Amino acid sequence: MTTSYDLDIVVTRGDTVESWHRVAAAVVSADRVIGTARDAGMVTYWRSCAKPLQVLPLIQSGHADQLGWGDDQIALACASHGGEPEHVAIAERMLADIGLEEGDLACGVQEPLSQRGARILRESGERPTRLHNNCSGKHAAMLAMAHLSGWGTEGYDRAEHPVQRSILQAVAEWTSVPASQIKLGVDGCGVVVFALPLDAMARAYARFAIAARDEDGAPARVVNAMVTNPFLVGGTDRFDSVLMEETDGRVLCKIGAEGVHCACILDAGIGIALKAEDGAVRAQYPALIALLQRLGVLTEELSPRLADFAWKPVRNTRHEVVGEVRLAAQI
Amino acid sequence: MTTSYDLDIVVTRGDTVESWHRVAAAVVSADRVIGTARDAGMVTYWRSCAKPLQVLPLIQSGHADQLGWGDDQIALACASHGGEPEHVAIAERMLADIGLEEGDLACGVQEPLSQRGARILRESGERPTRLHNNCSGKHAAMLAMAHLSGWGTEGYDRAEHPVQRSILQAVAEWTSVPASQIKLGVDGCGVVVFALPLDAMARAYARFAIAARDEDGAPARVVNAMVTNPFLVGGTDRFDSVLMEETDGRVLCKIGAEGVHCACILDAGIGIALKAEDGAVRAQYPALIALLQRLGVLTEELSPRLADFAWKPVRNTRHEVVGEVRLAAQI
Repeated sequence: MTTSYDLDIVVTRGDTVESWHRVAAAVVSADRVIGTARDAGMVTYWRSCAKPLQVLPLIQSGHADQLGWGDDQIALACASHGGEPEHVAIAERMLADIGLEEGDLACGVQEPLSQRGARILRESGERPTRLHNNCSGKHAAMLAMAHLSGWGTEGYDRAEHPVQRSILQAVAEWTSVPASQIKLGVDGCGVVVFALPLDAMARAYARFAIAARDEDGAPARVVNAMVTNPFLVGGTDRFDSVLMEETDGRVLCKIGAEGVHCACILDAGIGIALKAEDGAVRAQYPALIALLQRLGVLTEELSPRLADFAWKPVRNTRHEVVGEVRLAAQI
Repeated sequence: MTTSYDLDIVVTRGDTVESWHRVAAAVVSADRVIGTARDAGMVTYWRSCAKPLQVLPLIQSGHADQLGWGDDQIALACASHGGEPEHVAIAERMLADIGLEEGDLACGVQEPLSQRGARILRESGERPTRLHNNCSGKHAAMLAMAHLSGWGTEGYDRAEHPVQRSILQAVAEWTSVPASQIKLGVDGCGVVVFALPLDAMARAYARFAIAARDEDGAPARVVNAMVTNPFLVGGTDRFDSVLMEETDGRVLCKIGAEGVHCACILDAGIGIALKAEDGAVRAQYPALIALLQRLGVLTEELSPRLADFAWKPVRNTRHEVVGEVRLAAQI
C-alpha cells in the first residue's frame, strides 16, 4: 500500500488564497516507496541534502580518523551552517589540520545564513569570508580527502577530480541509481551537484536510518554526528537544528536550496525527500512538518518553535497579520 | 478564436530543470478573452496593479484639478516607486498641498525598492520613512480624496471609509465584476486589496487602453501620466519603467506583489493580466515579455535592458553562471 499525501502549501490574504506552492514527495521504507505527494519520481537537484553522502569517502578511507576528526568535524561537513563563530572556528581548524587556509576553499564568500551569524559579523566590523559560506565544512572535508589521498587539492571541486568521482560513486551506491544515469550540475558553492528522482533520494536516507540503527559503518557515524550536534548542522533558529532538537534526535533532516529537503525517521528506518516544485523556501518547512505529522512522528499540537515554521503569518508594512502561509489541505 | 499560450518559467542548472513556475494569464480585446495561459479565470489579488484604478475617483471628482495636480502626481499615485529622492519629494509635496505630513500616511515604513534609492538613503545616513514606501503616492492621493471630500482622513485605509468605497465602485465598474462579488483583503501597505479573476483584471486594462486612444476622461489622463513618466511609476532599473521606456509608451504596465502583473497595448486596445501561481517575482518578468513577444509588440530580439529581464543567469557564490531562469517552452 502506498499512501498519497497532499503537502501543497498556500499563501492566503484575508480568506482568499493568493499564491499556491505545489509540493512533491517520496517516503521510502526498506527500499519500497510507501508514500507519495504528487510525483515521487520528480527529478531535481539534491543540493545540500547530499552532504551526508558527500562526506562518506573521507570516513570510509580512514582519513577522518587519521586526522582525529570526530562528530564536530563530520557534523560541520554535513552542514548548511549559519556562519556563526562556532561554525567558522571549526572550519578554520579543519583547514589548519591539513595545512591549508581560507584561500584554499573553492566556495565563494557568503554572508552568514543565520541572523545571529550576520549580526555578530556586522558588529565585529569585519567582512564575510569563505569560512562564513554555509558549505565551508563540506569544502574543508573535500580538501582533506584530496590532500590525504595524495590527489592534490587543485580543482578538487570539479567533476573529473578523484574527490568528486569518489563522491559520485557513494551517491550511486546509496541511491541505487547508476553513476552514468546521474546528471551533474554546479552547486551554489561551486562543487558538483546531483540530479536524482525524489524516491532515490529518500531511499538513501532510509538506508542511512537503517545503518544508524544497526550501528553500521560510516553512515552510522554521520547520522550520530548530525543528530547529536544539531546546532553545527544548521545554527541558531535554523530549521534543521530546531527540528532535530525538538525531536530529540529521532529525526535527522537536511535542507537543500531551491525547495528540496530530506529527512529520515531513525527508529522506523524511513527516508523522506520532498521538493517545492517552484523552489520556494517558505513552502518546504510547513510541508515537511505536515508530512512528519501524517507519519506520526510529530504530534498535531506542535511545540512553539516548530509551530513557528509550520504556520507563518503574512504581515503588511505596519506589521499587522493580513494572511498566512499554511497547508492547503487545512483550508 | 482564443489563443493558448505557454508562459511557464523554469529555473535550470546545467542542462536539467531544477524548479518550475506555473504562469496563468488572460489577454482581453474589446471585452472578449482572446488569449489564455493555464487558467485565465484564476482568482487572485490585484495588489498594486489596481493603482491606476485607485486614483480614478480623485480625478473624476475634480479634486486633482482643484489641487493643480498633473502628470507627476498622478503617475506617482499609480506607482510602486523605488523610494528615490525624486519619488519621495513628490509624495512629500502632495502631502504639503493638503496640509498633511508623513505621519498621516497609513502605510508603514519601507526600505526603498530600487537599488539606487537604497544606496542614496544609506549614504545619507538617514532612516527610511513612510515616504519611501513604494505606495506613498497612492496613499497621498487617497488622503487628498478624503480631505477634499470633507470625509476626514481618519481610517482612510479601511474598507468602510468613503475613499475605499468609491475606489471599490471604480474597480467594479471597470472590471464588470459586481462590488458584492469582489472579495477584499489588506494589502502590504495596509489599504484594501481586491481579489478578482485574471480576465476581469485584463478587461479593465483593455478598457483603459481604449479610453486612452479615445482621449476619454480620467483613464486617459492616468494612462498618459504613466507612459510619459515611466521613471515615476517605477524607478531606476525597475521593470515597469524599463518596459515602458523601451516601448516608447506603446505599452503601459504595472507590477503587483506575489507574481501578479498587468499591462495594456495602447494602440491595439488589448489588456493583459498574468500571475505566477506561486507568487515568484523571478517568473513574472520573463513571462510578460514572452507574452508581449507572442502578441507582436516586442520583437524576438530584445533590447539589452529588456533581455536582462527576459533571461536571468543563475550564479553560484563564485559568480559563475551555472543555470538560467527562462521560458519553459524554449527548452
